[in-house]
Amino acid sequence: MVPALVVSLLYRDGDAAGFLFTMIPAGIMGFLLNQVRNSGQRMSSRDGYFIVAAAWIIVSLIGALPLYLDGGFPTYWNALFEIVSGFTTTGASILARPEDLGHGVLFWRSFTHWIGGMGVLVFVLMVMPMENDNSMHLVRAEVPGPTAGKLVPRMRTTSMILYGIYGFMTLMLVILLCLFGMEPFDSFCIAFGTAGTGGFAVSSAGIGGYGSLAIEIILSVFMLLFGVNFSVYHLIMLKKFKEAFSMEEVKAYLIIVAISTAAIAVNIINFAGGIGNALRQALFQVSSIITTSGFATVDFEHWPEFSKHMLLMLMVIGACAGSTGGGMKVSRVLILVKSFWAEIRQIINPKAVVTVRVNGKPVDKKVLGSTRIYAASYMLLLCAFTLIVSLDGLDFTTNFTAVLSCFNNIGPGLNLVGPMANFSVYSDWAQVILSIAMLTGRLEIFPMFLLFAKSAHDK
Amino acid sequence: MVPALVVSLLYRDGDAAGFLFTMIPAGIMGFLLNQVRNSGQRMSSRDGYFIVAAAWIIVSLIGALPLYLDGGFPTYWNALFEIVSGFTTTGASILARPEDLGHGVLFWRSFTHWIGGMGVLVFVLMVMPMENDNSMHLVRAEVPGPTAGKLVPRMRTTSMILYGIYGFMTLMLVILLCLFGMEPFDSFCIAFGTAGTGGFAVSSAGIGGYGSLAIEIILSVFMLLFGVNFSVYHLIMLKKFKEAFSMEEVKAYLIIVAISTAAIAVNIINFAGGIGNALRQALFQVSSIITTSGFATVDFEHWPEFSKHMLLMLMVIGACAGSTGGGMKVSRVLILVKSFWAEIRQIINPKAVVTVRVNGKPVDKKVLGSTRIYAASYMLLLCAFTLIVSLDGLDFTTNFTAVLSCFNNIGPGLNLVGPMANFSVYSDWAQVILSIAMLTGRLEIFPMFLLFAKSAHDK
Repeated sequence: MVPALVVSLLYRDGDAAGFLFTMIPAGIMGFLLNQVRNSGQRMSSRDGYFIVAAAWIIVSLIGALPLYLDGGFPTYWNALFEIVSGFTTTGASILARPEDLGHGVLFWRSFTHWIGGMGVLVFVLMVMPMENDNSMHLVRAEVPGPTAGKLVPRMRTTSMILYGIYGFMTLMLVILLCLFGMEPFDSFCIAFGTAGTGGFAVSSAGIGGYGSLAIEIILSVFMLLFGVNFSVYHLIMLKKFKEAFSMEEVKAYLIIVAISTAAIAVNIINFAGGIGNALRQALFQVSSIITTSGFATVDFEHWPEFSKHMLLMLMVIGACAGSTGGGMKVSRVLILVKSFWAEIRQIINPKAVVTVRVNGKPVDKKVLGSTRIYAASYMLLLCAFTLIVSLDGLDFTTNFTAVLSCFNNIGPGLNLVGPMANFSVYSDWAQVILSIAMLTGRLEIFPMFLLFAKSAHDK
Repeated sequence: MVPALVVSLLYRDGDAAGFLFTMIPAGIMGFLLNQVRNSGQRMSSRDGYFIVAAAWIIVSLIGALPLYLDGGFPTYWNALFEIVSGFTTTGASILARPEDLGHGVLFWRSFTHWIGGMGVLVFVLMVMPMENDNSMHLVRAEVPGPTAGKLVPRMRTTSMILYGIYGFMTLMLVILLCLFGMEPFDSFCIAFGTAGTGGFAVSSAGIGGYGSLAIEIILSVFMLLFGVNFSVYHLIMLKKFKEAFSMEEVKAYLIIVAISTAAIAVNIINFAGGIGNALRQALFQVSSIITTSGFATVDFEHWPEFSKHMLLMLMVIGACAGSTGGGMKVSRVLILVKSFWAEIRQIINPKAVVTVRVNGKPVDKKVLGSTRIYAASYMLLLCAFTLIVSLDGLDFTTNFTAVLSCFNNIGPGLNLVGPMANFSVYSDWAQVILSIAMLTGRLEIFPMFLLFAKSAHDK
C-alpha cells in the first residue's frame, strides 16, 4: 500500500489516514507472524494450495479496508467485492462513477490488478528467501495453467525473471500512454489494469473516454501481449527464437484472435459504420475479452447477437497459460479439442494407441487427466454459482454472464451487467458469492476447495 | 408406419395417402437392401457407430415425409425438425396448434417418441437375427449412458427383455390414463411421449388441458419410472431386490428429484397459491425436465428466477443411463462429482492411490476417461451450437436454452422457446442445425462425428 499512500499524499485526497489505519496493524501482524520460525519441516503440495488460498483471502480482507474507509462504498462487502475483483484481475466494479473516489484509493484499486496478475505470492517469493521445493509448491498453486511455470531450476530466480519481464513491459506501456497524451496518473492505473489483465477504468467513460485512436490500438496490442505465455518472452530473452515462435498454444491463441476479430468485424460492419471502425472495435473488444481484461470502448451490449455470443465464447477460452489472463486457458481448450478428436480416432481404430500431442510431444497422462477433471469441475461450478446467484431474482442472461465473467476474471457480462453497467444490481450476499467465484476462478478451483476440505486440517 | 396408417384410416383424416406414398418406396428400398448379403465379415465397433448414425438420419429423412405431405408444415425442413424431435424424444415442436394435424400424423409423431426412446436399432435387433458380437456394437452405440446395457449374454434376448418391460409399462400407463377419463387416442399418444420421455402433446393446451389432478400425478410418477435405469426392472423381474434397490445412480436420481422438488415448491409457493399446489406443480415439472420429457402443466416461464435456473440445471443432469431419458445422465454427473472430490483428496495426499467408486466398486479407468472426455465435448459442442444458432439474431437466453433443450432432448427452453411457445421463431437453417444438435445429443456425440470423420470411410 506504500505507493498508494504516496499517491494519496501527493494529491491530498484525504485517503492517507485510511491507508495508515490499515497499514500499521497489518504491519505489526506481519512482523509478529514473521517471528514464528519454520521448524524445518518440508512443505507438501497440499500445504502450498492451503497457504495460497488462505493468503488470497486474508490479503483481500485487509485490502478492502482503505476502500471502505474512503466512504465511497455503502457496505464493507461492497468494498470487498471491489478489491477481490482487483486482486483476481476481474475488473468488475459496483461503482457507476469511479472518478468520485480519491486518487489514492483509485491507484490502490488498479495496483491490486498488477500484483494479482502475476501472483501475490510469486511477489513475496521474490523478496523473501525460501527453500526451493517449498516455493515450487506455492508457485504451482498460484500461477495459472495446467503446468507450472518453472523457467529455471531455482524458483526465486524464476520469480525474479517473471516480475522483471512484467515490470519492464508495464513501464513501456506507461511511457507509450504518456507519449500519446494520457495523464501520468491515468497511464499508471490503466497500465496496471492492462498488465494484470484486470480492467478497472479510472472514470465512468472507460477507455473510450480518451477519444484517442492511438491509445486504443496500443492497449489492444499490449492486452494481447500480456495474454501470451510469459515463457515465450523468457525464450526470446535467451535468443531461442525458434522455440519461442513454435509454441502451439500461442499460435492457437493468435489464430482464435484473428478469426474472431474478422467474424465480429463483418458482423458489426453496419453498426460501426465502415470496415475500418468495425475492425478497430472488434480487435479491441476481442483482445479485451480473450485476455480477460474487460476494458470496453463501445457498449457491445448493443452489438448483434452473434458478436455477443462470440465474446461469451472467448470469455470461456481465456488467455494462454502462464500469462496474467484468466479463463479456461487456451492450452486447456487445445487439449480438450484434441482429446475429442483422439476419442473419435480411438473409436475408428480401437486397437491403436492414440495419443494427444501438443508442441509435437505427447501430453503427460496426468496433465490430460487433470485437464479433463478441470473442465468438468468448471462446468459443475458454473452451474452451482449461477443457481445460487439466481436467488437474487435477476434474469438468466444476467446471472449466467455475471458468473461467467467473475469466474473467468473478465469484468463485464451481458444485459444488466453489460460493459456500461455495473454489479451494484446484486445484493450484498450475492456480491460475496461472486467474490468467492472470482477467487475460485483465479486460483483455478482446487485451492479454494481444499480450504474447506476437512482432512486438509487434520493431516 | 403401419399403426399410424391404421389410425389414419380409422379417423378418415386424409393422411393415409401420405403414409402409403412413403411406405411403398421405403418398403421396396428395404427389400432390395435386404438382398445384399453380409459377406461374413465381422463388424467392428466403428461400424456399429457408423450404422447407427446413418440409420437415424435415414429414418428421420423418410419419417418426415408423411408430416410434410399432410400440409401442416410450411417447408420440408420444418417437418424434418419435428420428426427428428420425435425420434430423439426431444418433443420440441414448431407447431402452435398441433390439433390442426390429422390423427394419423399426430399418432405417427408421438409413435416416433416410443420407437426412438428405446432405440430404433434395438427394435430392429429384436425382430432380425444377427450375430451376437455384431449386435452388441449396435446396442453400445445406441443405448444411452456410459456403459452398455447388456442384461444377458445374448443381445437379441436383451433387446426382447428391454422392449418387453417397455411395452408392458406403456400399456399399464395407457390403461390408467383411459381409466381416469382420457380419450383412448390421447392416451396412446401421451403414453408414447411419456415412455420415450419425448413430450409431444396432442393439443396446444398440453397436459394442463385435461384439467385432471389424477392424470397429472400418474404422469409425474410414470415419467420418473421411465427415467430409471431399465436394468433395475430386470433385476426386479429376477427377484434380485437387494441389487435392484442398491444402485447408486438410481438413489442419486431420486435424491435430486426430491431436493429440487422441495426447493422449487418453496420458491413458487406464492405463485402457485398454497403448498399443495406448489408441490404438485413442482413435482410434475421436475419429473418432466429431469427425465427430459418436456411436458408442461404450467408456464414455468413465469416462475421466479431461481426455479427456472433449477430446471435448467436439471436439463443438464438428465435421467439415468440405460433409461429412455436424455441429458448428461445421472451416472456421468455422479462420476464427475466424485472425480472432483477424488482430485481434491489426491492433492491432499499426493502419494495415496485415490479411486472413484460407484456401487462400491472402483470405476473402470476407461469409463472414467471417456466420461470426462464426454463432459468436455458436451461443453465444447454446447458453445459451438449456441454460437452458430446466434446468427439467427435471437437473444442469449433463447439460444442457449434452445440448444440445451435440443441437445439434451428435452423440449421446452426459456424465453422465446418457453413451455408455451414453440420453435417456429427459428428460421429453416437454424432448425436444421437444431435437428443436428438433437441427433448428436441422442446418440451421445460420437456416432454423429464419426459419420463426418474421413478415415471412417477409408479403412
